[in-house]
Amino acid sequence: MVRKLIAAMLCCYSTLSYSGFDVVTLGAKGGIQDGNLTAFMLKSNSDDNYITLDAGSLVNGLRAAVQKEAFNDLTVPPTCDYNEVGYLLNKKIKGYFISHGHLDHIAGLIISSPDDSSKTIYALPSVHQTISQHYFNWKAWPNFTNQGEGYKLNKYVLTPLSTSGWQQVKGTELKVKTFPLSHSGIESSAFLFENSAKEAVIYLGDTGPDSVENSQSLDTIWKQLAPYINARQLRGIFIESSFSNSTPDKALFGHLTPNWIQAELNKLASYTDNPQAIAGLNVVITHIKYSLKQGPDPKFVIQRELNENNPLGINFIFTEQGDRIKL
Amino acid sequence: MVRKLIAAMLCCYSTLSYSGFDVVTLGAKGGIQDGNLTAFMLKSNSDDNYITLDAGSLVNGLRAAVQKEAFNDLTVPPTCDYNEVGYLLNKKIKGYFISHGHLDHIAGLIISSPDDSSKTIYALPSVHQTISQHYFNWKAWPNFTNQGEGYKLNKYVLTPLSTSGWQQVKGTELKVKTFPLSHSGIESSAFLFENSAKEAVIYLGDTGPDSVENSQSLDTIWKQLAPYINARQLRGIFIESSFSNSTPDKALFGHLTPNWIQAELNKLASYTDNPQAIAGLNVVITHIKYSLKQGPDPKFVIQRELNENNPLGINFIFTEQGDRIKL
Repeated sequence: MVRKLIAAMLCCYSTLSYSGFDVVTLGAKGGIQDGNLTAFMLKSNSDDNYITLDAGSLVNGLRAAVQKEAFNDLTVPPTCDYNEVGYLLNKKIKGYFISHGHLDHIAGLIISSPDDSSKTIYALPSVHQTISQHYFNWKAWPNFTNQGEGYKLNKYVLTPLSTSGWQQVKGTELKVKTFPLSHSGIESSAFLFENSAKEAVIYLGDTGPDSVENSQSLDTIWKQLAPYINARQLRGIFIESSFSNSTPDKALFGHLTPNWIQAELNKLASYTDNPQAIAGLNVVITHIKYSLKQGPDPKFVIQRELNENNPLGINFIFTEQGDRIKL
Repeated sequence: MVRKLIAAMLCCYSTLSYSGFDVVTLGAKGGIQDGNLTAFMLKSNSDDNYITLDAGSLVNGLRAAVQKEAFNDLTVPPTCDYNEVGYLLNKKIKGYFISHGHLDHIAGLIISSPDDSSKTIYALPSVHQTISQHYFNWKAWPNFTNQGEGYKLNKYVLTPLSTSGWQQVKGTELKVKTFPLSHSGIESSAFLFENSAKEAVIYLGDTGPDSVENSQSLDTIWKQLAPYINARQLRGIFIESSFSNSTPDKALFGHLTPNWIQAELNKLASYTDNPQAIAGLNVVITHIKYSLKQGPDPKFVIQRELNENNPLGINFIFTEQGDRIKL
């Protein structure tokens, strides 16, 4: 009887009457396909406005999403000068969350900046430092921010994230808590968002496994997430699998594989009241690289490796550029 | 009689039995569409190997070109581990020519670098300086070059271009002469290539008009090109038109419009033996921006503006990502 009850509860994880989150994939890959680099739009289902999770691709992703009819629920006001891509970029995205300063996580933002509207770029101070010193510096690109070198065009407000508590996300109903991640010598970040219904979603930027990185960063996050899982309020985790299981630890360079994702999710499960509580949890796999080699698409290899060894019953989600999903 | 003879010669400009050049457009836009940023593959028709003219997009452009069957004359050897995109990137492109350090001219190169083969990055010293200090610096990206900060992965050899004479392009039959351009305070470059048949093609990076930039850079180039036109050996000019004629000079920020292109080409014509000698010359228009606004595609506006005021009879060419053309 208890087993049946648990099974019924597990089956219901994703079908309870939550508000939820909307996600549009602007860039699905971890490289090397410029124009399809890590970026997701995110909003609470009860909110009209989006933020982005990283911004490796923007306009190219918005074009793909419009072509795939991902925004059929949205109407550009007749008085608006913008086309649909322009309206989305300028009016509906309220801020950018940048996990770390590697180019594949910010290229789209930089490239679209001349025609973008005024916005907030949220990041940890170390990430803002890279953005200021190496991109918006009048050498790589004009300085569209309010900090750094030379004349400041003041379009983007660099707003530092703190790792010590919740911060409100301007223009949306979301609030955010930030966690540092270890990415092979670079500070990366995870962003935990809560909507007005107290539901949560977490996005992890590039990260290696704790044991390879000699870090406790992921473990700290799993402990924070466990209460949300117990309360059935964690709507999804975005986590990277840059490589398939054939990649040895010494060649990870701060990334994860399916085996390492399973190991880390086991730790998460161990912190919940019931280790089976995360069954059915949405886990969006990000940052899979485009391959130049003959043979199967790495996405299918990683998909197989994750689903063939899935004792926790995770709902692994694989999206492509332009897709819209609900969490 | 003389007029008829001239007319006959003019008509034949592009149909004489030249060896010529092959061009594949990897990125057609001047922004803000990440994944479709200025980059062209170029080779002499009597050579098997390409170089790129800028590298704003690479893998995304190669994918588009393969999908458009631009490389149907090419077969990946059966023993090769690469797919067609991988074979082109790793085996057929022998070097990158970077006109200046703005991100929209080098993003694709940086993003594909982890899976690229060893190559030469040709640029003026000031451009190499930006590449070293702000991209391949272990902050924005690992240092895949042989210079600059931290551990050098030594994949790319930064080979400085000189403005004083011809240099051989490794792995191809091309030789190159480099000219500085003025791009609103940034040093940009033009690359004049000659093949074994002494035919030439010139690629101009971003540039403003001489009179707006207070420069003689373009004038110097036009004087150098005139003898090639007299000898009917100039196969094409790549030149930018970032904006349409509605853009005032004070808002050009180091770019050209159709009116300014016509004015500059008039100067070029004035240096030839016969001002009508450039009729039929191929001029490839680059760097047109993707628009976020309602209304006609800027490409069609610029196309109309160039062709409606074309007393020199220039053959203006407009390409899209993935197109293959012959010059």
